[in-house]
Amino acid sequence: MSRTPAEGRGRVGIVMGSDSDLPVMREAAKVLSQFGVEYELTVASAHRSPERAARYARTAAERGLDAIIAGAGGAAHLAGVLAAGTTVPVIAVPLASSPLAGFDALLSSVQMPLGVPVAVMSVGPWGAHNAGLFAVQIIARRVVHLRAALVRHKRKMAAEVEVKARAVSAETEEK
Amino acid sequence: MSRTPAEGRGRVGIVMGSDSDLPVMREAAKVLSQFGVEYELTVASAHRSPERAARYARTAAERGLDAIIAGAGGAAHLAGVLAAGTTVPVIAVPLASSPLAGFDALLSSVQMPLGVPVAVMSVGPWGAHNAGLFAVQIIARRVVHLRAALVRHKRKMAAEVEVKARAVSAETEEK
Amino acid sequence: MSRTPAEGRGRVGIVMGSDSDLPVMREAAKVLSQFGVEYELTVASAHRSPERAARYARTAAERGLDAIIAGAGGAAHLAGVLAAGTTVPVIAVPLASSPLAGFDALLSSVQMPLGVPVAVMSVGPWGAHNAGLFAVQIIARRVVHLRAALVRHKRKMAAEVEVKARAVSAETEEK
Amino acid sequence: MSRTPAEGRGRVGIVMGSDSDLPVMREAAKVLSQFGVEYELTVASAHRSPERAARYARTAAERGLDAIIAGAGGAAHLAGVLAAGTTVPVIAVPLASSPLAGFDALLSSVQMPLGVPVAVMSVGPWGAHNAGLFAVQIIARRVVHLRAALVRHKRKMAAEVEVKARAVSAETEEK
Amino acid sequence: MSRTPAEGRGRVGIVMGSDSDLPVMREAAKVLSQFGVEYELTVASAHRSPERAARYARTAAERGLDAIIAGAGGAAHLAGVLAAGTTVPVIAVPLASSPLAGFDALLSSVQMPLGVPVAVMSVGPWGAHNAGLFAVQIIARRVVHLRAALVRHKRKMAAEVEVKARAVSAETEEK
Amino acid sequence: MSRTPAEGRGRVGIVMGSDSDLPVMREAAKVLSQFGVEYELTVASAHRSPERAARYARTAAERGLDAIIAGAGGAAHLAGVLAAGTTVPVIAVPLASSPLAGFDALLSSVQMPLGVPVAVMSVGPWGAHNAGLFAVQIIARRVVHLRAALVRHKRKMAAEVEVKARAVSAETEEK
Amino acid sequence: MSRTPAEGRGRVGIVMGSDSDLPVMREAAKVLSQFGVEYELTVASAHRSPERAARYARTAAERGLDAIIAGAGGAAHLAGVLAAGTTVPVIAVPLASSPLAGFDALLSSVQMPLGVPVAVMSVGPWGAHNAGLFAVQIIARRVVHLRAALVRHKRKMAAEVEVKARAVSAETEEK
Amino acid sequence: MSRTPAEGRGRVGIVMGSDSDLPVMREAAKVLSQFGVEYELTVASAHRSPERAARYARTAAERGLDAIIAGAGGAAHLAGVLAAGTTVPVIAVPLASSPLAGFDALLSSVQMPLGVPVAVMSVGPWGAHNAGLFAVQIIARRVVHLRAALVRHKRKMAAEVEVKARAVSAETEEK
Repeated sequence: MSRTPAEGRGRVGIVMGSDSDLPVMREAAKVLSQFGVEYELTVASAHRSPERAARYARTAAERGLDAIIAGAGGAAHLAGVLAAGTTVPVIAVPLASSPLAGFDALLSSVQMPLGVPVAVMSVGPWGAHNAGLFAVQIIARRVVHLRAALVRHKRKMAAEVEVKARAVSAETEEK
Repeated sequence: MSRTPAEGRGRVGIVMGSDSDLPVMREAAKVLSQFGVEYELTVASAHRSPERAARYARTAAERGLDAIIAGAGGAAHLAGVLAAGTTVPVIAVPLASSPLAGFDALLSSVQMPLGVPVAVMSVGPWGAHNAGLFAVQIIARRVVHLRAALVRHKRKMAAEVEVKARAVSAETEEK
Repeated sequence: MSRTPAEGRGRVGIVMGSDSDLPVMREAAKVLSQFGVEYELTVASAHRSPERAARYARTAAERGLDAIIAGAGGAAHLAGVLAAGTTVPVIAVPLASSPLAGFDALLSSVQMPLGVPVAVMSVGPWGAHNAGLFAVQIIARRVVHLRAALVRHKRKMAAEVEVKARAVSAETEEK
Repeated sequence: MSRTPAEGRGRVGIVMGSDSDLPVMREAAKVLSQFGVEYELTVASAHRSPERAARYARTAAERGLDAIIAGAGGAAHLAGVLAAGTTVPVIAVPLASSPLAGFDALLSSVQMPLGVPVAVMSVGPWGAHNAGLFAVQIIARRVVHLRAALVRHKRKMAAEVEVKARAVSAETEEK
Repeated sequence: MSRTPAEGRGRVGIVMGSDSDLPVMREAAKVLSQFGVEYELTVASAHRSPERAARYARTAAERGLDAIIAGAGGAAHLAGVLAAGTTVPVIAVPLASSPLAGFDALLSSVQMPLGVPVAVMSVGPWGAHNAGLFAVQIIARRVVHLRAALVRHKRKMAAEVEVKARAVSAETEEK
Repeated sequence: MSRTPAEGRGRVGIVMGSDSDLPVMREAAKVLSQFGVEYELTVASAHRSPERAARYARTAAERGLDAIIAGAGGAAHLAGVLAAGTTVPVIAVPLASSPLAGFDALLSSVQMPLGVPVAVMSVGPWGAHNAGLFAVQIIARRVVHLRAALVRHKRKMAAEVEVKARAVSAETEEK
Repeated sequence: MSRTPAEGRGRVGIVMGSDSDLPVMREAAKVLSQFGVEYELTVASAHRSPERAARYARTAAERGLDAIIAGAGGAAHLAGVLAAGTTVPVIAVPLASSPLAGFDALLSSVQMPLGVPVAVMSVGPWGAHNAGLFAVQIIARRVVHLRAALVRHKRKMAAEVEVKARAVSAETEEK
Repeated sequence: MSRTPAEGRGRVGIVMGSDSDLPVMREAAKVLSQFGVEYELTVASAHRSPERAARYARTAAERGLDAIIAGAGGAAHLAGVLAAGTTVPVIAVPLASSPLAGFDALLSSVQMPLGVPVAVMSVGPWGAHNAGLFAVQIIARRVVHLRAALVRHKRKMAAEVEVKARAVSAETEEK
């Protein structure tokens, strides 16, 4: 893991419970890149490598992480375990990797007890993308130029909807 | 709503969909107070007062809010509507105020689409408390002394568990 | 968007949260066409383009809409956001576009709070078709000749069942 | 059942599956009264009195009903059975009267097949109130003065939120 | 529909809400054939052809039916509607034909109110097969020779398990 | 357990997993009494007394039972275990006796595999009542005079709805 | 925590996430006492005291524990976290302490990933009792005299059912 | 079934409700082989071959089984039925073989009543693998050398995570 001090532009840890989660969790990395936020992508299972997960959490602050994004499926404990070990904000992405379609990962991530918050995003790729974006929103509290970038991004999304709306109207509107 | 610039110590908006949600949402305020973070507590229904909700979101940044905590039950759209209107981080507390026991508020809050993240906490009072704590974690990215306060709080929680553990062991341990 | 005054035959707005919802939401348009009701089809995301959605709702009455059909998946807030901004009847079609199979869109659409009704149809294409038909039933309150058309449609459905019943009986009935 | 022609101000049938549903379903009646819309309140079980339910549906149009509101719990078939027998718009209120907390009534009401729409409201008293309001929205398509009344009602709700917001802020805002 | 008096060997009506349900519902017919029980297979939608469904129920007894098997998906009201109109035992097969995977059809079928029982089988093809078998069990109360046939069938199933067990053991047992 | 031959009027076994289920399961007994059908009420746990349950099933036919009604909560296996051991029709009443509100008992009862049908009623007291009624419907296949009694019962239920409807209309109808 | 070597009769650790879980988790202790198995009862939150939980797991084997019983509610990670840190068998008791009625604790406990098993019991007090009993079954693999005790216990349960059955039959059987 | 006394290395019975469950249940066998634990693999349906299932349970202890692994889908009663008949520990693997995606098998397996514990693993292949591993953990209470093997296996899993982490970091880490 690189340890570049990232004071100037923010740095986020993206952790996933299994390397098979990479295709989904890359969505978070893409968003961070887009906003010029540094990230590190790694694997740490709360259950198969608990010490690694605990160490990751314990050193998160000293490594200069502004937020940690944790993606896991099934009894998704990764985000909770990381949040237990650090005061850096932890964002969870519940993954739909078991037969229970993500209901298990969602409830396992969100129902955290008093005192150890985890910020849960939607299940699957939407959630990974939004986790990246939410991390940028957090970093923007101290890296002020990101605020303007977020506002531009919001406007761009609205403009894209307008374009799509015109396309749909043009194609389908009754004469 | 007061507009004190809060650069020095952080400021959070707590919004609820109905004044009947106040007893639960006060838990968020208590945590913020405990960490010396300013807050404003108000009511804004995404559905009954959409313009008020939109205005609240639109002016959140200029009012110096570091985060918004939104508590709502049923088809809980409040957090989503606020997140649609601002780039300030929005934290949702799903409330169990309908016969469907909070499953509705949870799914309505968490399954946000691509591009508009909402950070969802657990259902009910645990979630309100954790929302306050998560807001402090966000503010701590720029108000550095809060980081130490969060670490102390984490240690205190662990110490309290030790005390309780001793009490339980003393009372129940088999001789 | 065309603004033809539609007093004579009724006019419905069909709005979807994303252009990827078009294949399903076209089912609503087909039914309206079949009954000679005008419609406009557009895209407006409650979250990515909140102002567009709010403007759509605010101008619905003056544009002469008799009903609005809103299709969205995940944390489906579109129908609720539109209903918050207009007194024109809003009909929701929950879409099964997330891993949670439409349970999220259903609960997000249906559990509306006191004072802001949304009329929810079934999840997916059945719901889009029925939304079109329900809009016709609403318009038929003032465009009286539609009542007879609806009665004929009902009879036709019953007749089709008879035909299918005969086919099934002929093919399978035990001698 | 009274049969007053109600052309001038609209008329709604409120039907419930059991007289024990009356306390909840009265919420619908209250809203209608408030808007000066006539209503008739009756009991008809889809299962225990199917002929009564079928007759109610069959004669709804000739009795001048603009909408039917049907409240039922458990395997809530009442709205569907009424919608099968009339082209008057049918609005369902799923009731939480079984151990399954309304999930059964919600799914039984909302998942209607192609061709027979039912407009489903939220589970319980919120839904009964909203059913009344939605019926007024339908009638307002032909009884034009109701449109202004609905707009006033919407404004009043927003104003009430403002009042509550001030009360909450006054009581709780941090100094 | 044939009306052969079936006193000697029993007769069952198999009804489905849509002809697309035929591949599943044929499983019920197969079982009945196997036991020499007569059946009639038809289509009757509780919603699209309510009068047909009501007539089917009303004439079930006089047509000599010993049981009715009703298969439907979504808001599966067919079994309930038939049970409302006859005292002949009605057996429901909930079908998984909507995005909600059969949870809707199961709850819509099973949560019948006081006084109108419906006997619900498992969701999908297992349920259709078992509905046929349960109908045979009912008929066996009066057509005594079927009791022995059912006992033989039970023994045969147990014997088949023994055969499969030997195959699995032979193939996999560790030496 | 009494073993009176009951050819003339039918005989039903009512079995419950625990004596704490008696208040609910008595509803089944009441209905049987009302129709003059004999019954025996006993306790047999599929898990705590498997041999007793197996023996009950094995001897059901020779004891002249026309149907068995089994009430159980949680992982409700009682009905399935009885159905595994007899060809007498088994009717299940899922009870809401665990924190999971009867969803567990419902799914445990209804999702029976190919070849061993169980007829599931609604969760709780409604289901116990309906189980009794369904048993009468089964017995009526061979004890012909019960058919008329069932028809009278159905008419009485419809008449009771009429009375309640008049009461509700009288009390509430708008003048 | 006492560290008595317990080779002769077995020793179990009972851990709960909060001291408020004590009334339920005592059920496990009672069963162990009844079989003469030693136990230690303590509190360790996976989230509020992660190091304590990790240490507990790490030292479980050297302290001579034969099994660990972990009771937790909400996002119940305790059992998973303990199982991650030891090869001593871990038994989970999901508690119904959040508004989601134990569905959250159940899914969070049971859906463990490949390689880290947790043995999940039923939700609530039944599960705590059964966890104690299951621990005895595990210990009985090496403390042979417990096998006979378990067989006696099983017979006693069956006998108790017989007694209850007679009481129920005597009280209720139809004459 | 072989009856080799397995005192030296442990012996596990793997039972499945249908031979179609073999591909999943083989995962359990693989793990046992890997640890040198003997096993026997067979088919026994709780419902289609209840006597076979009861006999399997009754003779489990005398055949020297240390644990039984039971895999079943739908109304998964197999584990419960086996646990009812033996004091050997029973481990359940809920299978996702019905349209209800394993929710049915999970609830049917886990919600066991007081006095008859079943140890439930996760739904599907993860659960089958973990069942094998949990059986090894049980046997390791008496076959001491297995404890070291389990510790080595745990270390190996952690090491594999490290390798995967390096691969993911190398491939994706931002420069």
